Amino acid sequence: MQFEQITIVGVGLIGGSVGLAVKSRHIAKRVVGVDRDAAKLGRAAALGAIDLGTTDLDEGVTGSLLVVVCTPVDTIAEVILHAIPHAQEGTIFTDAGSVKGGLYEAVQHALGERFAFIPAHPLAGAETSGPEHARADMFEHRVTVLTPHEPERDIDALTRVEEFWRSLGSRLVRMSAADHDRDLAITSHLPHAVASAVAGSTSLELLSLTASGFKDLTRIAASNPELWAAIFQANRDPVLSALSAFTDRLSEFRRLLEAGDRAGLVKWFMEGKQVRDALGT
Amino acid sequence: MQFEQITIVGVGLIGGSVGLAVKSRHIAKRVVGVDRDAAKLGRAAALGAIDLGTTDLDEGVTGSLLVVVCTPVDTIAEVILHAIPHAQEGTIFTDAGSVKGGLYEAVQHALGERFAFIPAHPLAGAETSGPEHARADMFEHRVTVLTPHEPERDIDALTRVEEFWRSLGSRLVRMSAADHDRDLAITSHLPHAVASAVAGSTSLELLSLTASGFKDLTRIAASNPELWAAIFQANRDPVLSALSAFTDRLSEFRRLLEAGDRAGLVKWFMEGKQVRDALGT
Repeated sequence: MQFEQITIVGVGLIGGSVGLAVKSRHIAKRVVGVDRDAAKLGRAAALGAIDLGTTDLDEGVTGSLLVVVCTPVDTIAEVILHAIPHAQEGTIFTDAGSVKGGLYEAVQHALGERFAFIPAHPLAGAETSGPEHARADMFEHRVTVLTPHEPERDIDALTRVEEFWRSLGSRLVRMSAADHDRDLAITSHLPHAVASAVAGSTSLELLSLTASGFKDLTRIAASNPELWAAIFQANRDPVLSALSAFTDRLSEFRRLLEAGDRAGLVKWFMEGKQVRDALGT
Repeated sequence: MQFEQITIVGVGLIGGSVGLAVKSRHIAKRVVGVDRDAAKLGRAAALGAIDLGTTDLDEGVTGSLLVVVCTPVDTIAEVILHAIPHAQEGTIFTDAGSVKGGLYEAVQHALGERFAFIPAHPLAGAETSGPEHARADMFEHRVTVLTPHEPERDIDALTRVEEFWRSLGSRLVRMSAADHDRDLAITSHLPHAVASAVAGSTSLELLSLTASGFKDLTRIAASNPELWAAIFQANRDPVLSALSAFTDRLSEFRRLLEAGDRAGLVKWFMEGKQVRDALGT
């Protein structure tokens, strides 16, 4: 048992999964859930993802030395800033947000010497929302990226947070917030926009003429629009760069198709196949 | 048993699956496979997809009243034209190609009154190739589109071909070749190019930072480049139209993101989600 008590703020799909994983792996004796939505707290408790829930953040962080913030990306800093005055000295914060740039800087002044924040991004999730879709194995064999601001200074907190995410089953990767945001714009954020654009440019009457390729490609288009709009706004510039690289590649396809360049088309598809084959099934 | 003997030309993933389905559902007493690749015929026979195989098309169509052409789209007409002089009077041809425009017209003069061709497109497949990936249930609960050129004139052949594809487990949809090509450009062809463009604009070093969304989205990017280059060339103009609609939608996303229009982004994602939600899981 690593912790006497931990607090999870935001008990949706990810927060609920953190709770289930913590409980099933006996990582904390007690899990406190905080959410603005009391009904969601009730569902999370009924599912065993949390032991007790409260809509009061101040109360919820009392007595926990680890606070895991699983709220939408545009509220994480705000949650930490509100929690700090009520948190026990030595409390460590971590999060599960998809964008890391500017996040540490937004809370840095409030952390002082008494608190630490180790930003984290578990590369896990689903197109569904809410604790009812949470899974205890959500983070197993998945990468969790940590973007510590000052790893040397925060070495104790970093070690604790690494142990925490590793104990949920994930594999750790450490990088800078800027590198994370640039890379994830390509591997996660842009694909969401592309999936949505494919779905959004297909009329409902044509759905009966789709097969498994369309279904798999557009699966993430069913994700929560509010959450993803916030992610895109928070990571705007890297996403715009990734979008340009993607549209350049698609323009090359258009050029080859218009020119009737069969060999060029085969080569173009082969380049995509080589990347996908390297990923495995 | 509907048929004494049928011939499948091209015993890859789709042809092999037709063979397995025919055998397992006892639709023909004997299945003859034709392929230029003798080794592939051997594998198809070993898997039970065909009873006997030959690299000689003339020989292969002898004695069959149904010939199912499962070769790449740019060779289907050629196969039928070569087969006709050796086929028994009354032989019906069907195919499994992804593009229908111009196909009937290319063989019409050779069919005369003695032969019939009912073009078909089963909306089934996988990113894999070869008879070793064939499945007897490939067509179960899948749509097969038929694009008969003159349904009234060819009513007997059409009925037979409908019975055939239905007997493999698929649900039939009838439409014109032009409608098929316009619709499939949107629901199948464009998504292939998009999946390939996402994979192809991602460097290999970033693959460790991908999760299930990227994996599902790019799955079809592993498909056979030769087959897909041929499909795109055969359906060039409808694909270019679908590509324009898609890039327009993506440009709208770029505009909203650049403008910082949160409500617009939420609405944009919601439109894609509504289409995807309508498709179901």
